[in-house]
Amino acid sequence: MTPDPRLSINQATLKYASLATALRVTAEAGVASIGLWREPVNEVGLARAARMLDDSGLRFSTHCRGGFFTLPEGPERRAAIDDNRRAIEETATLAAAGAPGSQAILVLVVGGLPEGSRDLAGARDRVRAALEELAPEAQAAGVTLAIEPLHPMYCADRAVVSTLGQALDLAEGFAPEVVGVTVDTFHIWWDPQVLDQIARAGREGRIATYQVCDWKTPLAEDVLLSRHYTGDGVIDFASLTRAVIDTGYDRDIEVEIFNAEIWAGDPAHVVRRTAETFGAAISPHL
Amino acid sequence: MTPDPRLSINQATLKYASLATALRVTAEAGVASIGLWREPVNEVGLARAARMLDDSGLRFSTHCRGGFFTLPEGPERRAAIDDNRRAIEETATLAAAGAPGSQAILVLVVGGLPEGSRDLAGARDRVRAALEELAPEAQAAGVTLAIEPLHPMYCADRAVVSTLGQALDLAEGFAPEVVGVTVDTFHIWWDPQVLDQIARAGREGRIATYQVCDWKTPLAEDVLLSRHYTGDGVIDFASLTRAVIDTGYDRDIEVEIFNAEIWAGDPAHVVRRTAETFGAAISPHL
Repeated sequence: MTPDPRLSINQATLKYASLATALRVTAEAGVASIGLWREPVNEVGLARAARMLDDSGLRFSTHCRGGFFTLPEGPERRAAIDDNRRAIEETATLAAAGAPGSQAILVLVVGGLPEGSRDLAGARDRVRAALEELAPEAQAAGVTLAIEPLHPMYCADRAVVSTLGQALDLAEGFAPEVVGVTVDTFHIWWDPQVLDQIARAGREGRIATYQVCDWKTPLAEDVLLSRHYTGDGVIDFASLTRAVIDTGYDRDIEVEIFNAEIWAGDPAHVVRRTAETFGAAISPHL
Repeated sequence: MTPDPRLSINQATLKYASLATALRVTAEAGVASIGLWREPVNEVGLARAARMLDDSGLRFSTHCRGGFFTLPEGPERRAAIDDNRRAIEETATLAAAGAPGSQAILVLVVGGLPEGSRDLAGARDRVRAALEELAPEAQAAGVTLAIEPLHPMYCADRAVVSTLGQALDLAEGFAPEVVGVTVDTFHIWWDPQVLDQIARAGREGRIATYQVCDWKTPLAEDVLLSRHYTGDGVIDFASLTRAVIDTGYDRDIEVEIFNAEIWAGDPAHVVRRTAETFGAAISPHL
């Protein structure tokens, strides 16, 4: 089976593979696109990672990830902002190195409540302040910052942005090519407003990337690792995917799976299985 | 320390105590109110449970729980609806047996996706249909059905109603004394719309019961059991409690904690600790 031409393998799906292995198994499976993570890129160095990506012939769909914007002012917040500047540069460099159709999109996980804090409104205000600080640099680099609403179960410790509507509210006032949103089925499938908010995201030109994986219960003991192949859980990919496509979204679609069992598998097998399950669950709706 | 006069101990906080023990330790601690669960009530029988409640001198704040409305038409759905009829009767009987100020409120956990289904919209429609069927009987019995939005992490397997706004939308068209909502901090604290929706619930006269407990990470291995004493986690009880009180809410406030460690403790100690932590985290905002 030929993988869907719009499928992109998010590197986190191959957690324990090196950058070289991830690029190789993705290309060998006939998948055309990949989303990279900062840690394995920085392990080999940005310039070398860009050359490896170029050599692979793959498109580059997103860079994961920036964010962690919720700390109050001080050296730690400054370090986080500076780290995001580097992430913007990496994103631009990798997008330029990828095959035609590559995108310069930096996915943002905005951060949870600072240690000991209960001030959710304050944390959310600091996300906006960080976006205001970084937007000019992203714009200059031609990079889109893609705010990712995370499932509300991660609100305390990962992301105080929990719904697509809230991410779009945050993005207001920024140019859509500078601040967009990440639409990830795992995080938003439950939201009674999700179809309306996908349509709104489309109207506002803010769907930077569409990512898919499935939700299944019982949740994994570590709820971060509870993501599954599309079709293995309860998410209705038909309605969500059609809603995204109906907005005119025409980019790659990433599969990003955090799952200890899948991570323990052979990366080449994981890519093939990802392509098969994508073909069955997503492709019919494209 | 005298417990706050508005504190009610939800019986689930004393999971392994019999009804007799739960009533005794609650009254002995000087707490004035209790919320009961159907299983321990039915273990002794409704008539006897009502006499025991009467003898305890406690107010009755809610009955937990009805719901599980998402099955498609068939014998299992009929059995669930019939079971809710019995729960309505139990609620009315216990409210009449409790001390003055008792309330006839049946908390509803609406149910998750039926096995093998991905049709979230259909499941939600069936919740509305069940409410339409049960509302006349609740009204005749003087019972308020209190839809409880559960945290979105329970959407697949427990409750397809995930936000206060969604619960209020569902309640529209019913009289507020017949269909209201349960405002439980654990389930809704993360919601960027929560303060607006609490105000709306107040305006629409639908806050049937206010319940408090805390959220802490990492989540328990079984995410159902991840509820904590108020003050032990990250929820800002000041803003949520003030929002509820600002609507004119003047009833009891329940503490409902599912937590294996707390359940393993001596029930008398658990009630005292619940009262202390309520006094510190909630009472200042009443």
